[in-house]
Amino acid sequence: MTYQTPKPAESGGSSDGLVLRPVGRVESPLVDLDAGPPQGDEGAPDAWLLLDPSVHPAAADLTVGSEVLVLTWLDRADRRILAVHPRGDETRPLTGVFSTRSPDRPNPIGLHRVRILAIDSNRIQVSHLEAVDGTPILDIKPVLETPGER
Amino acid sequence: MTYQTPKPAESGGSSDGLVLRPVGRVESPLVDLDAGPPQGDEGAPDAWLLLDPSVHPAAADLTVGSEVLVLTWLDRADRRILAVHPRGDETRPLTGVFSTRSPDRPNPIGLHRVRILAIDSNRIQVSHLEAVDGTPILDIKPVLETPGER
Repeated sequence: MTYQTPKPAESGGSSDGLVLRPVGRVESPLVDLDAGPPQGDEGAPDAWLLLDPSVHPAAADLTVGSEVLVLTWLDRADRRILAVHPRGDETRPLTGVFSTRSPDRPNPIGLHRVRILAIDSNRIQVSHLEAVDGTPILDIKPVLETPGER
Repeated sequence: MTYQTPKPAESGGSSDGLVLRPVGRVESPLVDLDAGPPQGDEGAPDAWLLLDPSVHPAAADLTVGSEVLVLTWLDRADRRILAVHPRGDETRPLTGVFSTRSPDRPNPIGLHRVRILAIDSNRIQVSHLEAVDGTPILDIKPVLETPGER
């Protein structure tokens, strides 16, 4: 048994192809990418995840204090970029984006490891999220386990 | 300076909205989801990432032996599902999918931590990838650093 959204006309599976449907938006004091830090763990502000009420059941078991991965769509990214100087430092060699955390990449999915600070109905406050105000949220996942963390 | 694809008519930024463009496909002996293991680290087979030649520069700095995150589009998922019994075990309570690794979720993006075993032109062999043959590849990223790993 699984819990489904009540929309009767919507089909599951792959019929709608590779189109993302945001489940919410980031609410953050960070509005300017250039003013932001280069990595989330270097001082990005706390932020709120505003989830669409339709996905509330998906978020029902999140708990304050736990760490999660937030996936976002970095909608200001340039998807044509395939190689960059890491962190914009031109003294560093041009590097293929699959080896970097550049937001500019063919599919600009942001991956953010954050801690849940508070849960307030459909809003979730998280620590140190490097995503500007209004960034679409795609998914929330448990932190990946690694052998050293088990 | 950044390296861009040579397509002159394509615009960057957000003009094309939330449409994913696969950068490649998984080539795997795993063809049946039900026959697969529930988690990648429990015995999923080694697989090849077949990258589109157009994104070759993005992959140019990947190295054999390193660990990476592979993002895929789990195109057999049911996007209407918001809560599941983890691992299909009905003795476990129904749990919101944002607290689980269920492929069934609003945006079924697969996140796989793998080790690169070999690189052969546009093909990259990786360890233990829990994704069926033909799964679209969205992105490859460096492994997220955690405080304990630094």
